[in-house]
Amino acid sequence: MMNVAVFGAGRIGKIHAGNLVLQPGARLKYVSDVNLQAAQELAAQHGAQVADIDSVLADPGIGAVLIASSTDTHAELIMRAAAAGKAIFCEKPVDLTLERAKACARAVADAGVTCMIGFQRRFDPTFHALKTRLAAGEIGDPEMLIVTSRDPGAPPVSYIKSSGGIFKDMLIHDFDIFRWILDDEAVSISATGSCLTDPAIAEAGDIDCTAVTIRSRRGRLCQINTSRRAAYGYDQRFEVLGSKGMLQAGNHKPTEVIAATGHSVSQDKPEHFFLERYRAAYASEIAHFFDAVVNQVAVRTTIEDGVKALELAEAATLSWRENRTIELAK
Amino acid sequence: MMNVAVFGAGRIGKIHAGNLVLQPGARLKYVSDVNLQAAQELAAQHGAQVADIDSVLADPGIGAVLIASSTDTHAELIMRAAAAGKAIFCEKPVDLTLERAKACARAVADAGVTCMIGFQRRFDPTFHALKTRLAAGEIGDPEMLIVTSRDPGAPPVSYIKSSGGIFKDMLIHDFDIFRWILDDEAVSISATGSCLTDPAIAEAGDIDCTAVTIRSRRGRLCQINTSRRAAYGYDQRFEVLGSKGMLQAGNHKPTEVIAATGHSVSQDKPEHFFLERYRAAYASEIAHFFDAVVNQVAVRTTIEDGVKALELAEAATLSWRENRTIELAK
Amino acid sequence: MMNVAVFGAGRIGKIHAGNLVLQPGARLKYVSDVNLQAAQELAAQHGAQVADIDSVLADPGIGAVLIASSTDTHAELIMRAAAAGKAIFCEKPVDLTLERAKACARAVADAGVTCMIGFQRRFDPTFHALKTRLAAGEIGDPEMLIVTSRDPGAPPVSYIKSSGGIFKDMLIHDFDIFRWILDDEAVSISATGSCLTDPAIAEAGDIDCTAVTIRSRRGRLCQINTSRRAAYGYDQRFEVLGSKGMLQAGNHKPTEVIAATGHSVSQDKPEHFFLERYRAAYASEIAHFFDAVVNQVAVRTTIEDGVKALELAEAATLSWRENRTIELAK
Amino acid sequence: MMNVAVFGAGRIGKIHAGNLVLQPGARLKYVSDVNLQAAQELAAQHGAQVADIDSVLADPGIGAVLIASSTDTHAELIMRAAAAGKAIFCEKPVDLTLERAKACARAVADAGVTCMIGFQRRFDPTFHALKTRLAAGEIGDPEMLIVTSRDPGAPPVSYIKSSGGIFKDMLIHDFDIFRWILDDEAVSISATGSCLTDPAIAEAGDIDCTAVTIRSRRGRLCQINTSRRAAYGYDQRFEVLGSKGMLQAGNHKPTEVIAATGHSVSQDKPEHFFLERYRAAYASEIAHFFDAVVNQVAVRTTIEDGVKALELAEAATLSWRENRTIELAK
Repeated sequence: MMNVAVFGAGRIGKIHAGNLVLQPGARLKYVSDVNLQAAQELAAQHGAQVADIDSVLADPGIGAVLIASSTDTHAELIMRAAAAGKAIFCEKPVDLTLERAKACARAVADAGVTCMIGFQRRFDPTFHALKTRLAAGEIGDPEMLIVTSRDPGAPPVSYIKSSGGIFKDMLIHDFDIFRWILDDEAVSISATGSCLTDPAIAEAGDIDCTAVTIRSRRGRLCQINTSRRAAYGYDQRFEVLGSKGMLQAGNHKPTEVIAATGHSVSQDKPEHFFLERYRAAYASEIAHFFDAVVNQVAVRTTIEDGVKALELAEAATLSWRENRTIELAK
Repeated sequence: MMNVAVFGAGRIGKIHAGNLVLQPGARLKYVSDVNLQAAQELAAQHGAQVADIDSVLADPGIGAVLIASSTDTHAELIMRAAAAGKAIFCEKPVDLTLERAKACARAVADAGVTCMIGFQRRFDPTFHALKTRLAAGEIGDPEMLIVTSRDPGAPPVSYIKSSGGIFKDMLIHDFDIFRWILDDEAVSISATGSCLTDPAIAEAGDIDCTAVTIRSRRGRLCQINTSRRAAYGYDQRFEVLGSKGMLQAGNHKPTEVIAATGHSVSQDKPEHFFLERYRAAYASEIAHFFDAVVNQVAVRTTIEDGVKALELAEAATLSWRENRTIELAK
Repeated sequence: MMNVAVFGAGRIGKIHAGNLVLQPGARLKYVSDVNLQAAQELAAQHGAQVADIDSVLADPGIGAVLIASSTDTHAELIMRAAAAGKAIFCEKPVDLTLERAKACARAVADAGVTCMIGFQRRFDPTFHALKTRLAAGEIGDPEMLIVTSRDPGAPPVSYIKSSGGIFKDMLIHDFDIFRWILDDEAVSISATGSCLTDPAIAEAGDIDCTAVTIRSRRGRLCQINTSRRAAYGYDQRFEVLGSKGMLQAGNHKPTEVIAATGHSVSQDKPEHFFLERYRAAYASEIAHFFDAVVNQVAVRTTIEDGVKALELAEAATLSWRENRTIELAK
Repeated sequence: MMNVAVFGAGRIGKIHAGNLVLQPGARLKYVSDVNLQAAQELAAQHGAQVADIDSVLADPGIGAVLIASSTDTHAELIMRAAAAGKAIFCEKPVDLTLERAKACARAVADAGVTCMIGFQRRFDPTFHALKTRLAAGEIGDPEMLIVTSRDPGAPPVSYIKSSGGIFKDMLIHDFDIFRWILDDEAVSISATGSCLTDPAIAEAGDIDCTAVTIRSRRGRLCQINTSRRAAYGYDQRFEVLGSKGMLQAGNHKPTEVIAATGHSVSQDKPEHFFLERYRAAYASEIAHFFDAVVNQVAVRTTIEDGVKALELAEAATLSWRENRTIELAK
């Protein structure tokens, strides 16, 4: 039996806690949150205790921590947990600054602890199956990757102001998809964007739709299009063109009902947002993390992956701001 | 160059004439119709002459006739054209009575002329490709056939009264599909039906939706469901379950536009009705007929096929009226 | 907290037990099975005890029982549990004979206990959404129902011999779909079938594919086609034609990957079999049962539904054997 | 009756000639080609005469010319036909140099003749329906356009060498789609590309896959991805994200057959290449041209459209070569 603590009892913290307790051999021992009531409720649901961070990290019986607190706390918690020798699962992003993210990666490496970053999309059944089939050579060598990533609606502007900008907040996942699917690194990135859905986003210094192009070391091309608004729901698709064909990952739908009327033949919209679409992915990533910790195997989404995605987000932000292609160190 | 005459200058006569003149080596020489104005217009369009039936059949320069006049004239025209030694293309049905249809078949056999019945569905690109793949063994031995055949709306009750009933008027095509796709004959047929769309149809002694089950000699099962009304358009699908899989023939759509909105993700309705859906099939069947006549090869939909489909329609009508399964002579 | 016992620790018993313990307020207290080892394993997994039937029913602390043992034990367990005043969830079928099923229904009514039969398809997300939209009038009045129900492969012939035949074993679900979707009762039923996949099934006195037609009191038509074998997986579709359109329930797929190659554009096969396809439905039906018991509300699939479906299965069997349409008492 | 001449009796010339003669009131009088045999065959098929360019343009009875000869002849033929007062249909591109294309546009304007450029995609049923629905406001204001444009295979390298490069040869159509669908002009364009399918293409100074991003005056974003090779056929899709939803234009398929086997559920690949995919579009554009000439109405794809698309192609070529974003004059 391994004891685990969760930092953060908000929406995503609850999901991770709920998935953790389904793992045979896992016990949620502590919940920690600055919102004491949230911590108490989540602890009560799973028979855990509320504790502060110091106490959690000081408990030698804690084998792993799940960091699901606000983004600005991630780096410090990673470094402290690493120093305490705990295995770490941390929500993306590692940090909003590349320097601190790299410092975290060094701290993790120095401590020799497991550290997994929550790029849950890699665990989505559709994306995972596509990657497996691509790796098996079903469409030959990959040549182009087209990623469509659109939210159903923008978050509050107050959130956007402290989000690090659309590239770090939203495209961080898409940059990870690029690296994971093509199994390649970027040599250049070119980004542009507009603010078309809400002028308040522009006033906050951000944009709400972007068009990004990445060239990889092997000359592969990746295009990413994103928007903060898709009236029809959460749009999460990508497609890989290879030398022998194409693999596409389509949206998931709530049901398989088709309605034919005098107007059209229609199906369900995509799952509404990430909590619905990635439900299975969240469960799978926590199972993977716990299994990796218990069995001492490597995790599939490392803190280095987190750093690399952040590097791309910074370069994309620069490209957008300076309206030029950014070359990346090889 | 082969001279051809068309009997009937109505909707389907125009289509056949238009397709005929596209065949290299074909010349439309005569148009004949009791509606003189219609005949004149169609003749003018293609540089043909208006002529009465006697003159057409007496002209030794006429090699083939296309019979597209009203159903009650088919049998007589077939017999006269056969006697005159002309190759014959005739719209379905051969006749509304089995006796007369059989007499036509005998007349055609005695005269030794080509006679093709217009079961255009066999020439539909989707249906034809499905049949070809089935015959190539793609899904092993066929075991079940499910046919869905629904019109967008019922014809006038005045038409229904002289139509021979829904089984002869509408399911005649589906009975031909059964024989063609399964390459088998019926040993029993069981039909039921209701009048659900318009009480006037019941008052006319007919029904507007049917459910038919046919057993074949080899024990294969076929279910046909039909309705005179489908709010979403002309629904023409079938599927074959085989020992190694299934082949489905779906509806054709006018365009491949997909619309995703706050309500649903929708596509076009099916093509509206038979003139739209079977446009390619009508062109292909006339090309086949003309080619068969010129090159002296067998036609793919013979008058015997017309007789067999009519036998099934009569048996289905009896089954529905007497509420019992009808055994068919082997 | 309500204590619950499960009878039967096989495949489906494990699923029900696993879903039960997810319900807030539910506690699995006992597991009972003639296979002691299976009972012990399932009990251990959920912190329950192994007990025999007498002990379970004698425990006044048990509020509900889940009957997931072999079909031949259902009736006796229902009657004993009813007599003991327990709320009952029982897998379909109630029994293989109509007389005993009706006796069970009387026993349940006399005891005044809740009794739910496991027609899990009513709880499938797609089927449930379709029914809800149909009931909301989206396609007007329903007129025709076409049900396709095919297993990926036949069970062992030894199973088939004691299954009650294909109509009671397999179509029982489809008969329930007919009653539920059309909200109507049968007035006549006509069934035929063949043995096409394995001669041993015929030798066992059964068939492996069927074609059934049902007329309802309101003149609606239902066609059911079934097969013990579909090479492409578990095929569970139905469609309702209504006065204003059509609603179709399609198969569920494991992923939304599309592969375009030099040969074709392909998607996943349907979910392999009922355990995969109806995973969500099994969870939802147990949640519904537990909620209904705790909150004293009516269950959505009653023992009367079980009796009615069995009546249709008996009539279909008779129709097939005697090759005639069976009229049902109104 | 209007007499028309066609310049060029190759593949596309034959298609235009065949579509022209279907227009009521149109007569193909002359065919002109440096390949005399090709000219004679096409002329014979339609009862036309072979003539040289001078004779054609000197014939006052010729109302319109169809220019379907090789690209390097377009500009001169346009200028001569304009000077002769003929209405002009010319295949894209107007010319491979922007200067000459602009000179043609001036010549056409000075002569006051109709001049239509063959951007046939605007006449594709799917693309046209999408544009119509977009213009009707079905998805609100357009914000992003994603264009996928892939050929089934590369042309011979000899062709590529004189093609003007991939941006002028292949993306010229996609640039026109951008302008047409968004009803907007580019303010900047950024292009990159690789040679991944055949090193000989790189040796010829060209690339075989590209990724282009265009910003429009109103801040809308367009991404275009292209490849000279798609193993699954001709891939011609685009999608528009708007404030209220999305419209997608999918590929056309030869048939609507679906095959479900032990491996997958598959459909047809897209139509093989442009002759198949745009068959209806070619017919429709010639009908539009002839109608516009006869009825003196404006054509929908003008020579200015041809110039604008070429400007984008030149800017894209420069962006790719110099690896920088190109700003376009407003």
